[in-house]
Formats: sequence, C-alpha cells, structure tokens
Amino acid sequence: MGQVITFGEVLMRISPWGNKKFIQSNVAEFFFGGTELNVGISIARFGGQVKHISAVSNDFIGETAISYINKFGVDTSSIVRSKRPLGVYFLEVGAVMRPSTISYNRSHSSFSEIQPNMVNWQEALNNGAWLHWTGITPALSKHAFHILKEGLILAKEKGMTVSADPTYRNGLWNYGIDAKDALVELLELSTVFIGGINEINEVLGTNYGYSNDDFIEASKALMEAFPSIEKVFDKIRTSLNSSWHKIRARMYNGKEFKETIDLDITHIVDRIGTGDAFAAGLIYGLQRFDDCKAMKFASAACALKHTYEGDVNLATVNEVTAILNGNTSGRLHR
Amino acid sequence: MGQVITFGEVLMRISPWGNKKFIQSNVAEFFFGGTELNVGISIARFGGQVKHISAVSNDFIGETAISYINKFGVDTSSIVRSKRPLGVYFLEVGAVMRPSTISYNRSHSSFSEIQPNMVNWQEALNNGAWLHWTGITPALSKHAFHILKEGLILAKEKGMTVSADPTYRNGLWNYGIDAKDALVELLELSTVFIGGINEINEVLGTNYGYSNDDFIEASKALMEAFPSIEKVFDKIRTSLNSSWHKIRARMYNGKEFKETIDLDITHIVDRIGTGDAFAAGLIYGLQRFDDCKAMKFASAACALKHTYEGDVNLATVNEVTAILNGNTSGRLHR
Amino acid sequence: MGQVITFGEVLMRISPWGNKKFIQSNVAEFFFGGTELNVGISIARFGGQVKHISAVSNDFIGETAISYINKFGVDTSSIVRSKRPLGVYFLEVGAVMRPSTISYNRSHSSFSEIQPNMVNWQEALNNGAWLHWTGITPALSKHAFHILKEGLILAKEKGMTVSADPTYRNGLWNYGIDAKDALVELLELSTVFIGGINEINEVLGTNYGYSNDDFIEASKALMEAFPSIEKVFDKIRTSLNSSWHKIRARMYNGKEFKETIDLDITHIVDRIGTGDAFAAGLIYGLQRFDDCKAMKFASAACALKHTYEGDVNLATVNEVTAILNGNTSGRLHR
Amino acid sequence: MGQVITFGEVLMRISPWGNKKFIQSNVAEFFFGGTELNVGISIARFGGQVKHISAVSNDFIGETAISYINKFGVDTSSIVRSKRPLGVYFLEVGAVMRPSTISYNRSHSSFSEIQPNMVNWQEALNNGAWLHWTGITPALSKHAFHILKEGLILAKEKGMTVSADPTYRNGLWNYGIDAKDALVELLELSTVFIGGINEINEVLGTNYGYSNDDFIEASKALMEAFPSIEKVFDKIRTSLNSSWHKIRARMYNGKEFKETIDLDITHIVDRIGTGDAFAAGLIYGLQRFDDCKAMKFASAACALKHTYEGDVNLATVNEVTAILNGNTSGRLHR
Amino acid sequence: MGQVITFGEVLMRISPWGNKKFIQSNVAEFFFGGTELNVGISIARFGGQVKHISAVSNDFIGETAISYINKFGVDTSSIVRSKRPLGVYFLEVGAVMRPSTISYNRSHSSFSEIQPNMVNWQEALNNGAWLHWTGITPALSKHAFHILKEGLILAKEKGMTVSADPTYRNGLWNYGIDAKDALVELLELSTVFIGGINEINEVLGTNYGYSNDDFIEASKALMEAFPSIEKVFDKIRTSLNSSWHKIRARMYNGKEFKETIDLDITHIVDRIGTGDAFAAGLIYGLQRFDDCKAMKFASAACALKHTYEGDVNLATVNEVTAILNGNTSGRLHR
Amino acid sequence: MGQVITFGEVLMRISPWGNKKFIQSNVAEFFFGGTELNVGISIARFGGQVKHISAVSNDFIGETAISYINKFGVDTSSIVRSKRPLGVYFLEVGAVMRPSTISYNRSHSSFSEIQPNMVNWQEALNNGAWLHWTGITPALSKHAFHILKEGLILAKEKGMTVSADPTYRNGLWNYGIDAKDALVELLELSTVFIGGINEINEVLGTNYGYSNDDFIEASKALMEAFPSIEKVFDKIRTSLNSSWHKIRARMYNGKEFKETIDLDITHIVDRIGTGDAFAAGLIYGLQRFDDCKAMKFASAACALKHTYEGDVNLATVNEVTAILNGNTSGRLHR
Repeated sequence: MGQVITFGEVLMRISPWGNKKFIQSNVAEFFFGGTELNVGISIARFGGQVKHISAVSNDFIGETAISYINKFGVDTSSIVRSKRPLGVYFLEVGAVMRPSTISYNRSHSSFSEIQPNMVNWQEALNNGAWLHWTGITPALSKHAFHILKEGLILAKEKGMTVSADPTYRNGLWNYGIDAKDALVELLELSTVFIGGINEINEVLGTNYGYSNDDFIEASKALMEAFPSIEKVFDKIRTSLNSSWHKIRARMYNGKEFKETIDLDITHIVDRIGTGDAFAAGLIYGLQRFDDCKAMKFASAACALKHTYEGDVNLATVNEVTAILNGNTSGRLHR
Repeated sequence: MGQVITFGEVLMRISPWGNKKFIQSNVAEFFFGGTELNVGISIARFGGQVKHISAVSNDFIGETAISYINKFGVDTSSIVRSKRPLGVYFLEVGAVMRPSTISYNRSHSSFSEIQPNMVNWQEALNNGAWLHWTGITPALSKHAFHILKEGLILAKEKGMTVSADPTYRNGLWNYGIDAKDALVELLELSTVFIGGINEINEVLGTNYGYSNDDFIEASKALMEAFPSIEKVFDKIRTSLNSSWHKIRARMYNGKEFKETIDLDITHIVDRIGTGDAFAAGLIYGLQRFDDCKAMKFASAACALKHTYEGDVNLATVNEVTAILNGNTSGRLHR
Repeated sequence: MGQVITFGEVLMRISPWGNKKFIQSNVAEFFFGGTELNVGISIARFGGQVKHISAVSNDFIGETAISYINKFGVDTSSIVRSKRPLGVYFLEVGAVMRPSTISYNRSHSSFSEIQPNMVNWQEALNNGAWLHWTGITPALSKHAFHILKEGLILAKEKGMTVSADPTYRNGLWNYGIDAKDALVELLELSTVFIGGINEINEVLGTNYGYSNDDFIEASKALMEAFPSIEKVFDKIRTSLNSSWHKIRARMYNGKEFKETIDLDITHIVDRIGTGDAFAAGLIYGLQRFDDCKAMKFASAACALKHTYEGDVNLATVNEVTAILNGNTSGRLHR
Repeated sequence: MGQVITFGEVLMRISPWGNKKFIQSNVAEFFFGGTELNVGISIARFGGQVKHISAVSNDFIGETAISYINKFGVDTSSIVRSKRPLGVYFLEVGAVMRPSTISYNRSHSSFSEIQPNMVNWQEALNNGAWLHWTGITPALSKHAFHILKEGLILAKEKGMTVSADPTYRNGLWNYGIDAKDALVELLELSTVFIGGINEINEVLGTNYGYSNDDFIEASKALMEAFPSIEKVFDKIRTSLNSSWHKIRARMYNGKEFKETIDLDITHIVDRIGTGDAFAAGLIYGLQRFDDCKAMKFASAACALKHTYEGDVNLATVNEVTAILNGNTSGRLHR
Repeated sequence: MGQVITFGEVLMRISPWGNKKFIQSNVAEFFFGGTELNVGISIARFGGQVKHISAVSNDFIGETAISYINKFGVDTSSIVRSKRPLGVYFLEVGAVMRPSTISYNRSHSSFSEIQPNMVNWQEALNNGAWLHWTGITPALSKHAFHILKEGLILAKEKGMTVSADPTYRNGLWNYGIDAKDALVELLELSTVFIGGINEINEVLGTNYGYSNDDFIEASKALMEAFPSIEKVFDKIRTSLNSSWHKIRARMYNGKEFKETIDLDITHIVDRIGTGDAFAAGLIYGLQRFDDCKAMKFASAACALKHTYEGDVNLATVNEVTAILNGNTSGRLHR
Repeated sequence: MGQVITFGEVLMRISPWGNKKFIQSNVAEFFFGGTELNVGISIARFGGQVKHISAVSNDFIGETAISYINKFGVDTSSIVRSKRPLGVYFLEVGAVMRPSTISYNRSHSSFSEIQPNMVNWQEALNNGAWLHWTGITPALSKHAFHILKEGLILAKEKGMTVSADPTYRNGLWNYGIDAKDALVELLELSTVFIGGINEINEVLGTNYGYSNDDFIEASKALMEAFPSIEKVFDKIRTSLNSSWHKIRARMYNGKEFKETIDLDITHIVDRIGTGDAFAAGLIYGLQRFDDCKAMKFASAACALKHTYEGDVNLATVNEVTAILNGNTSGRLHR
C-alpha cells in the first residue's frame, strides 16, 4: 500500500464570508487547494501515505501553504520554493440560480513557472506506488507539461499505477501547445481514467452521448486507443441549482459495467473540490477494495465533500463508509 | 436612455450574523438600503444612469451612507445633509417557519423630517427620463409627501415616465393624512403601475380576487380610474416558508396579458429588497425591451436578488439574462 | 402558576462558525446549555417563572454561565460555585448526510462532582409548582443521582408535578449504577412522561414497535408499572438528512390518544436542544392549556427551535402560537 | 447597605471593530450603556444591590437592552417599555492624536420621550438607600427633568443619600429650559457632589482655577450655596493623547482635603464610561469605607475601566483593591 | 483649484487581523491602495477634486477596486480594465521590535502590463491642474515608465504643477532600465520634490548627510541640477520601534528653510501609506496655503494617518487642522 | 545537531478577542500550547529537528491539536491518544494595570492521566540529542512525574543534554508529592538550568537576593548541590504594567558571568509563552553558539515573542538575529 504521489499547483483561495461579493465586504477567508493537492490531502485524511510535489513562493505565503499541507500529514519534502508568487484564486459563492464565480491570478505563479531542474523524480517517487495527474497541470505551461510527462515515464518504468483526471479547462492552455495532443501523450502513460463522456470525446475526437450504453462504448473505444488504460470511472452530477445537486457514478473496467444510486445533496455547503474528492475516494478505494466498492466509496466521498467548507474533503474512512452503507440520515454523533 | 431618478429614504440596516437574535450577539452587520435606493442601485449595477435624491444625517453615518451609494456609481449630488440622524432599521433574520422581523427607528429621521427647500427638482431632474416612487415616501411625513408630489408634477411636465410602487405599509402613515387619498393623488401623475391585487384594491376600494382574470379586470379598472397609467406589472410570491419561495410575474398593458413561469428559490439568502429588484429590472427592461421581456427580466432579477446579502440586487445584466434564458442550474463560472 | 424548577448540568458549548471543523479554524462561538437548563430558559422566554439549580465553576467561566442564565430572567439563586471546572462540549456542525458531532469534557465537571450538601431542596423548592428532570442527570454521578432523587421525593411530598424526560444517553452511566434501576426509582416519583417507544422499552424491558397502536399499548403498560405517571408525550422526528427534518407529536393520557400533523423543517439552523424545546413547550402548555393543545404547542415550539442558533429555544408564546395555528409561511414582520 | 437606585437613559452603542471608521467596514460591535446605567452595573459587579429605572423600546432591541442589564444582576423591574425606539449612539474609536467621535440618535428616544406616569417612585425607591443622578437626564427633555426631580424629592424625604454628577453636556438641553437653573434645583436635593472646577463654576457662575487651593475654595463656595452638599469629589484627567491618560482624584468634605497619586494608563483600551466608573467606585466606597479610601477606590476603579471594552467597568472589588494597594504591575493571574 | 491627477497601480492589500501571521489564521482583511491612489483619495477626503488613472483587472476584483475608489468620490472614468489580474500585496503586521512584512504579487499585474494605448492623456488631463507621480510607477515596467513620461510632458505643456515622490524601491526596476536615469528624465519634468537626503543622493549621486544644513545644500544642488524644481519637502521619521514613531518635516523653497516640531505617535495603528498622506497634505496645502503652512498641514496629515487602518488617510481638513494647531490631546468629540 | 525532545501537556487555549472578558462575548479564538510544546515549536520554527511527546484526546480536539503541531513540522509520531479530554485553559487578556487571567480545566486531562505504558522512551529518544523538561509536568500527576523521570534517566544514559526549567507553579502539585523533593530528583539528571533566584531558592531552600552577585553565588551553590548542572541562565522581567515590559538575561556557566542589555517591549501583543521562547532560543543557541551568544539569542527571542499572538514564538532565526544585532527599530520589510 505504497505512497500516493500527487503533482500540481497549490493555490490560495480567497473568498468573502457566506454569499457576499467582494464589493460588499472587507474580510475574506482563505484556504489552500489545487486539484491534485485536494486529492492528496483527502487520501491522507483516509489514512493513506501521500506526498505532494509542487513549487510554492519563497515568502510567508508559501510558508503558510506548506504548513497547511503539513497539517494534514502529507509529505511536503519534495515541494520547492521559488521567487514567483503563489497562485491565487478569488471566489464569490453563489446560491440557488446564482453560480459561484472564480477569478484566477495564476498565470505567472511559482508553479506555472516551475523549472525543469526543480523536480527530482527519482527521489520523489522513491516510495511511490501510485501517481495521480489531472488536465490542469499540462495546461499551465510547457515546463509543467514536460515535468509531468517525465514523472509519468518514470512511474511507468517503476510499474506504478497512474490515474488520469484529464479535465479540459477552458481558459488555460495558452502557451502554444494543443490540449488534445498533450493529453494524448499523457494518457498513453496512464492506467486509470477518471472522467466521462466529455473527456473521452475530447481526447478521441468522438461524439458519444450520455447514456450508459454510450458510456460503455466510449470506454471501450478509449481503452482501444490507449491500451494502458484498464478502468474508466465517471461521476455524474445533476444540478437543480447552485445549492442542490445529485451525484452518482458509473464505471467500466473492460469486464463489467456498474453504477451507483443517486446521492441527494439538498443543502450544498461548498462544491469546490468535489470532483477531487471523487478521485481521492477512488484511488484510496482501488488500493484496498474491488472496483465496484471503490466506485461506491468514491461516490460517497464526493457527496460528503459538498458538506465541508474549503477545497478539501475532510471526511474519514468511517464517515465515508457510513454513507456507502446507506446511512445518510445525518444522526447526531455524541 | 436618460437618467432614472429615485427619491426616498436611505436607511441603515443593522442585523446580527446568520440567524442570530440581537439577544444572542454583540456583533452586527450593517448595510444601507431603502426601497427607492435599492431600485436605483440595482439599475446602476445594470449599467443604467441613476440619481438618488434624499436627505441624510450630517455626521459620519450620513457620510458612510453617501459613500455606500457612490460605490455603486449612483449620482449623489442631490442628496442633502441635515442635523437629524439617519433612519435605522434592525433586522433579525428568520428561517423556515420563523419569520424575519424588523424594528424601525425612522420616525424623526433626516428623511422623515426633510424640509421643502431641500430638494431642487428643476436641477435634480435635469437629465431625468424616468422617475420612480413608492408608497413608503408619502407615508413618512407631510413634507415627504408634498416634495414627492412636487417632483411628480414636474416629471409629468417634462414628459418623463413615472413608475409607482404604491405598497401600503402598515405602521406608517401616522402624520394625519389618509393613505388612500395621498396615493390617489400620486397615481394620477404616474404611468407605470408596479403592484398587484392588494394594491389595486387598496386604491380603488375594490375587492378583486387573485386569479389571472381578476388581475386583468382589476388592471382595466385601475387604468380607467387613472388614465395616465399605461401598464400594470404584478409579482406573485408563493412562500413555502421563510427559506423557500417561488416567484412569478404577470402584466397587463391595455392590450395583452402575459405571465412568466415560476422561479423556484429553494434556499433564500436574503429576501429583503426583492420587490425592489423586481421594480429595478422592470424599469431597466422597459427602457430597453418590449413589455413582456421587461417583465421576464424583472422576474429573473427578483429571483436572483434572493441570493444576495443586503437590500440591493447586485446582479449584472448578463447574470439576469442567463436566468431569463432558463439557465438556472447555477454552474460554476471560472 | 408557580415556579418551574429545573436541576441539571450547565455546559459550555464551543463550536467553529458555520460548518467548519476545528481543524479548519481558530475561532469558535460559545453558548451555554444543558438539557434541563434549556427547558428552563425556554419556559422563561414564554413568560413562566423558572429557577435553575446547578453547580458551576468558581471562575470567570462559571460567572459567565450564571450571567448567561440571568440574561433570560431565570432565577440563579440556587446555583452554587465549586472549584471544579464547568463542563464543556465541543460541537462540529454537519450538513446533509454529514452528522453533527459532539465531544464532551464533563466527567469531572463542577456538576458531575456536585456534593450532597450543595443543594438545599427545602429552600430551592419554596415556590416550586413543577419539577423537571431528565435521564442525563442521574447518568453523571452517584451524587447527582441521589440529589435528584432527594428533590423528587420532596417534590412529591409538596404535591408538585414532576415531568420526566428519561433519555438514555449512551456513553454516560459510568459510575457503577444500572441505568434502568436508577430510572425506575426516579420514574416512580414522576407524573408526566416525556418520551417514546425507545424510552418505554428501556425502562420496562419490553419490545414495542413504533405504530400508534403500539404507542398506546406501551403507554398503558408504562402507566401500569408506574401508577404515578398520568400522561405520556412522544415527539417523532423523521430525518431526511442533517439539514431537513420533520417533527410531529403524539400523546396518551389514560383517556385519549392524540397526534399532530408533521411540521416540515426544510432548512435546519441548529438542531441541538430541540427535544428540550418540546419539553419546555409541554410544561408551559400543561400549566395553561388542555393536554392536546399543550402537545401541539410543544410540537410547534420544537419545530421553531430548529431555526435558532444555540441550545435554547428563543421563541415567544406568540411566535409558537402562530405556528400552532398553521401560520408557517414565515412572512416578514415589520 | 440598601439598594442603589440609578435613573437614566439606556443607549445602544454601535461601533466598528478596532480603529475603523464606519466608512471602512460593514461590521460593528454593539454594547449597551448610558451614564447612570454604567454606574449601576459597575456597583452590581462590586456586589452591591442596584436597581436601574428607565424606559426602553417595546421591540427586540429593548428586550436585548433589558437582558443585557439582567446579565449583571441589576434589578430591571422598574424599567418600562414604550413605542419609541431605544436611543443609539455611534462611535468611531480614535488613537494617539485622533479623537474618538460619537454621533447620537437619541432625541426622540424611548427615554427622552418618557411620560410622567411611567415611573412609580414610591415603589421604585422601596428598598433604596442611595439615588444617583447625572446632568444628562435633565438635559434630555422636560419630562425627564421633572421625573428626576420628583424622585429626588422623595429620596430626600426618605433620607436617602443623593449623589450628583452634574456634567454639563453641550448639544443637549434643547427643550427650552436653562441648564443652570435646572441643575441648581436638583443640586439643592443632593448630598454628594461628583465633579470638579468646571462643574462648580457652571452652577455657581464663578471662575475658579484648577489648583488644589482653588478646588478647596470652590468646594466651600458650593457647600455654602447648597447646604445639603456634604462632600465634593473631583477626578482629574491628564491626556497625553487619545491612547495615554493619567488619572488622579481629590476631595473636600468640609473637614479635610485629600488627593491621590496619578495612575498612568499607558495603553487605553476604551475610555468611554471611565467617569461613570469613578462615580460607581465612589458610591460603593462611601457606603463602606471612609471618604479618603472611597476616593482612592474610585480613582483605581476609574483607571481600571480604561482597560475594559464597552461602557461599563467590569472590575471586581478585589481587582480594584489591588490597584488601590499599588499593585499595578499587571502580573498574570493563573 | 483644478483637479489633481494621480497615475499609478491599484493594489489589493490582504492581511490577517491584528498582529497575526498568515500561518496563524484563515481570515484576512482586504483594502485597496497604491502609493499614488492613496494620495488621490486623501486629497478627495479633504474636499479636493481628484482623478486617478490606472489599469485594473476585468473581473470582480477590478470591479471592487473601482467601487472602492468611487466610494471616496475620486473620478474613476480614466481607469481601464485589462485581462491581467490586479496586483496584490500580502501584509503581516509587526509590533514593537518586530517589523511589518510585505510580500508582493504584482510583477505581471494589470498595471505592470499596462499598454501604451490604454491612457488617453489629452482627455485625462482635461481639467487637471496638478499631476503627482512617484518612483514606484517607472520601476514597474517599460510601458508604465513611458506612459508616465508622456503624461508629464503633456502636463508641462499645459503648465500644470508636477509633484514628484521619487522613492527608490529596492526589488523593483527589474525590466532593464537604470533607475537613476529614468528618475532623472522624470524629475526634469517636475516642479515639486517630495523627498529627503536619500532620494537626492540617489538622483544626484551625491553623499549629503542628514543635518538641516546638509538638507539645504542638497536641495540647492537638486534645484541646480533640475531647474524646474522649485521646492523640496522632506519628512523625517524617527522609529523607536514598529509601534512608536515621531514625525517632523522640513522644506527649502529656494528662499527659506523651515521645519516643524516632532509629532509623537505613541501607539501606531497602521503605518502603511503615511508617506502618501504627507504628499497628499502637501499637495492640498500648496494649492491653498503658503509653503510653510502646507508643510505643517502635510506633517499633521502624515501623523494622523498612523491612526487609521488601511493604506489611506481618512482625516478631514478640520481634523488635520486641529493637529496643525497643536490640539493633539485627542479629546472625545460628541 | 540531533533532535530536541520535549515532553509535556498540550493545552487548548480559548480566549475572547482583544481585551474582552467571556461575559462580554460569544466568540473566542483558540490556540494550542503548553510550556514544553511551545519550546519545541519555536525550535522547529528556527529550523531545528524536534519531537514532542504527549497524550491527547481521542476525538476531533485531539486530532486538531496534532494537526496544529504538524503544521510547524514538529514530529508527532510519539503522541498517543487517550479517552480523556484534552486539557483546556481559558484566558482573559488584561491591559495596563489589569492582569491577564487564566482558568484551567486540566486536572483530569489526557496528559494528567497519562499511563506508564504510553511512552516508549527507547523509541522516542532514538534520534534525540537534547531533552527539555519543565516543572509543570511533574506537578500534574504521579504518572507524569515518573514517566518524565524515566525519560531523564535514559537521556542521561545516552549522554543527551538535559535542560530544566523548574518553574514552580502554585495551584498544581495536588497529588501528594512534595514539589521540592520531586524537582530535586529531576535536577539531579539535568545539565542546563533555566531559571533564576526564585527557582534556586525553591530547590535549595536558600534565600538569595536578586543582585548579580547573589545570582553568581546562588548559581555556584546550585552547581555544588547538583554537580550535573553546568550552566545557569536567568531571564529578568521588569513589568511597568500588563502592556509594557523590559526583558534582560544573565548567565553563569561556572567560568564566567554575562548579562544582556534590557529590551524594551513598549506594546505587548501577547506575553503568554515568552519564558518558553527564552528556553527555545537558549536550546537552539547552545546547540550552535557559545554560551553568551546563546543567551543573547534567547533574550532576543523572548522579547520578540511578546509581539506574536498565541503561546508560541513564530520568529525565524533571521528575525531573532536582527534583534540580537541591535536592529530593534522595526523598519517595514518589503
């Protein structure tokens, strides 16, 4: 049950209290996050061994980011410091039909401007059993992309499991590389695909629909195109509005298709990082359970994340397992 | 697309955080509002030109009120300062079956004690194309009533559109004038009626019911009694409880009746000023769209307001238009 | 309409803001509560005469606890100070499928270590008409149990009404007495039973189900076993999740069975102390209304409590009565 | 050691955190105060019996004010409720050379508009041994003045001690009575004078200087003019700036002159109500100690008040006594 | 008394409450500032006409920055929006011997990356009488330097007064231009020099000491090197530690040397922007008073700024004048 | 430069904001501390390797305590979890002549009730070079005393340096052992003595005065009585009041006496843990510098701690060294 390695940007999140806009306030809360870090911290909360690799600023903000990660017991020994500032994102939290809105200040951040010699993969992957990446990292800069690819190559050599969450994020990919080409290169080095129809259509250039049959066909096509990929896991979100979602999951592992029931999240506290909570639940689960139970664990973890403030799922294994077992009535624990 | 003029009291709103009662706290948030000002600020947020006319205190509270209005780009050059304190209202925010409760300290406020020479209507209406009034202003004091009437007369002379929101507010009208008589005088100078069955029955002394047919009949009767009134817009609120409302609107413009679908506000953040958001959407819309689209825009604006803290709708035109186009799922904007 | 006497531990409740966990914050709110005190304060808010008897710490925390109780007009003259610290509980507030979680620091508290000579029941019950106890007090320590029993004996002698809320709380009862035996001794001195099937099964060692018929049978069996008990009141909670409950009540008084409709609490603010709000509504109601109206008043009070932060129902009689009369739409009060 | 009676306005104080101006914030703290109430609460904190008489609003703000007073164990049974709002004052806290600034909203408050039949002095003074008044109350309104005078007359009849703090507050006295005439009428019913050269010159129309000799002369002249006055106590403040004051006191009781050393308040936390803390210390002291020790106790109490937030001195007798004994090094208490 | 024009970066300042470090908190306050903007807002608070020119982000943070400036009545019509994020600085506030520490995230900000066509100087200076610049702007980027120079050239043509605060800020000037060369070019277009020995030595390459005689010599040398410069104003800060400074000023205007007394700031609230407060007081003063009174006004303004939170001096003319007149005892204003 | 080991209680500190008393608030900040932990975290902030050994509660409070320690990079692998609650202390922060006040809830805490088998010293001291203890630990319980002694014996065997801060804390030592006897046993195993005249007199039963000569004599006597003790370091605090202290230090190491100058702390932010900051600076210094420089480093560290909120010195080595070098003017760092 070796170490899970995550590699990606650490962002500082700054948002006014409650549903206020910045124009209404002079006080803000701050958290730290970043899609891959969120996965790492969540797995550490479950009790897994995790190391996060990143580049943060060489000032008191970077120090605070590292201390935030330390707090959750994630190994920060491979995080480097640089002269560039830490990436920041500002969030205004919506409600009902008002969407939450994010504004980024990350394009010249310490991570976007990471340099090739900053990551020593040999050392970093020393105890690594699993490497997780997302589509955000290669979208940030050429160096970020190449460093990631370098890590995946080594991970493959070492026989590590590689999970890919190839989310395509509009607004990034501004440094002159074709998103699809880059994602294809990285998927060829990956073994677990965390994504749905949109992501598959994106990398295959196909046009599958959203039905379960389409999902199975799309997964098969993906596995054919990327023979290293063994399993596909998809999380499906139904949004009544900003405050009320339903979550379910489905999977195809080459042998069988499975899906979960809907979990009804009637009063969302914070939906940032819920996809990362799914990925974390999945990784933790696949290291310990069969595929179907891992998917259910991931789905329960994702649903639970909607009830925590901040970017990170703070639930424990017991808490996720209770939801997985259908215990969703929220009875007070004394 | 000339300036919209609003005239009315500026109130300081003071309320404990969350759902606390004053007895439970020693900290409070404050906002500034007032029904006509709320309309003005919302239109300014949409990009309209707005001037607000009022009398505020000659101390740091009045200064803060003016700076609050400046913040949103509303013209404050016709606001006068007086020795009387600014009106205040205290709010305790309810939830579910507990109503929110308001206590006013406004009866001798700077606006209630406004003096005749304090408003120079000729100057104030210089660039004015639209004048909006509500039933609160004439209910406050004799001077407030007469100054408003004076403004309406000049607005009529100048051919401005005059919108009336003749809300009858119990607990005011204590200065010795009959509410109905006063409202009638003011409606005779108005062209757009923002109100429903209750308001029509109030000024006509009739007894219409709440059906659409009744609404059309009532509107016709109103237009007959007040020939200057060309259009009637009604907002209908269905309250499941303090935290969950539905909003729809209907209109009759002498030619056609139209109504919108219900917008479901499942998790209300702050319902104060939602009627003002409707009026603002309507005024902005009627200056730019046909009657039916204006109504839909107003209805969407009203629904969105329930998601903002404070008295004022902070939504932009794009945000309202998205709701108007049915995009109510609240998907995160990055 | 003499004084209601409550006897029990005063606890300081400490919890982070909103849905935060302690690990996410460095700020916390604090309240004071305790199941019997919650009943007392709620009755005082209704306008009843109440005295609370307890032992609090002889430091500024105990002083703050007493001032908190004074604030609501509850008589604190029989509260003693001791060298032991006040009991504390820490709360993390859940949402949707995440349960709220409580951690106690009370096992050597000023109340758990109350000494026999600290309560002068003759003096304390001087103006008493009603004594209320719960299953928490005898569960804390031998002295707490014996002092309570002593009070009940005197209350019986004086012909006072004695209400029992014999909640069995797992995790307490660690001092070497059998919970059932203790509760039986106390129920033999009680006249009003506030509890349902679980509590009856607990003390009778029976196995009744949850249907109304079962409830009537169980109540009859209880009254047979404890002839002093004249009335049984049961509150039934249906939990969709942590944030959404329904509440109803039923009763059997030896002559008739009655039940209320469900009250739908779609957006829970704080569910701590809602059972105490029911007991308080019942006691206040039984002193003034018939049994059925008292039950309806209690049920409305219980539902309303879910909308107040803290352990205590802050609703007034008018506010509860409005709910009791079906006015649950939460219309803004000005 | 009978009850001390205070009569005067209860004000809600609202101020932003720290040294912020209202224009910089949207959050404020609130306290309750009022010069006579501050005296009363401070004496109650010392363990004295106190009743405060006032008129507060009949809404949740008035309720909160009463609960605030209850919290400190002051008897609120003679406080009446009225339809007028509670008086409010807004405070911006200065520092160094920036003065703190106050803006009042009190001229039509529940207390300013108190009506003659609202105070039943016979009942109110039932257990009274001491009645304290200040120059604020007669400055507010004719009724306030006359009710106060009525109380003083009865107090004199009953042989109570009457302390006068005849502060002349500019900006009040707007209702058509001459301040000096009114104060003279009230001083003729008083026995202890709390005030210095300015106040004596004000009521005598004299022009004494600030030296100790002048003080003795002025005190003698005052006692000659008002034979009921037995003792004069003066508090002398030296302001280096808003944040750093020195306090000392002096007295003349017809027999001897005494003065204290300076107490150096190097880091003021809140200077509001420090004069009231002096008066409270004096009243408490004169009921228990000789004149000179009472003066020293008052001076220490006044100095200590500068270290508490809010209008009220929260120090205990032990804490004041420590200062009185020269223990001003502020050593941590565990 | 035409408009004062300021041109420079708008920065968002983010800092934890009190003396906390980021590592200790998850809440921060935010303000907006920037050295030239601080000058502009302060002059607007004095009642002067001010326009600020800048480039801010095209998101809700840029919107908040503009609304912040609007709040104080500064003309924002020449502020442009860009796709780059607003500059940010993080502040940890020290005390006593602990310095406050700032970390910037501004090197690719909307202002640093301002483009030549973004400022229309002809339009911007339309009503301008005075243009103020500092050494920060040319230090940020080539475009910022050139746009500033373009503005100074036009200002000179229009006969406007140009004040220069050529602070040399270590850590900037990274874009390949020599700081001294750039400052010299800009000083040749300036008429009022705000700076002391360090700044003069910097631009002249000299080595003057800090005595008054040295100051006069240095000023003469400066005026010789830059004939357009008519007056030199120097602010002298004596730091006992982070919390306690003294401020005085001196000037040489070619004819006479003058200096002020020390103002003792015993309890600093916030020292950020105090130099800008000096510049603002000077500009406001020079437009209205003689040089010596302007210097005294500036010195008093600078001292007062230390008592306001945030980057901006919020004092009014009356408040500064009181200090100028020696009224520094901070007596409470009611 | 091996690991520093600290062993002692982790306490949760809860205090209202600013100078508020609990009676004035419903919000509190919380920190974690404990005299030995404070030493450990401070050394870790300096860059030293540190392990803290303790017993914390097995709930979310204990989890939060551990995450707090992790945050600073202190090794928590030897901290055990127990069923008992974490110790708590409540703090009200004084000012000027008002002392800060602490109330403890620790007598049955997880650490006070630590059990013999909970610490595996062989494993815990594996990489240990230095063991630090204080007089608090043996004062808590018999087990705490014996476990500490067991650790000291092993440390001696391993040739580790052992520093003793034998503070005698009144109010503890309630479990039946004589404080002096216990301290003597522990000092016999120690090599560095951190304490002054009071502590020496306490353990020797002597009566030395406070002069430097007395200090040297006392130190010699101590070293004679406890031959293992090689060095004595004393920190001298002069308290003008709660808000203003001076700190200096002196030492005797058998060969030479040295002392530092006074550091003037004119505006104390938080004095809790300043003695621990001294001990931490000393341990860090003695591992790297000569005795005299270590003392100066410790003294500077102690002074700096007064400027940080919370129990822990957050200063870095560079920040302390700046003070050590006389750079105490607190100039802003950008």
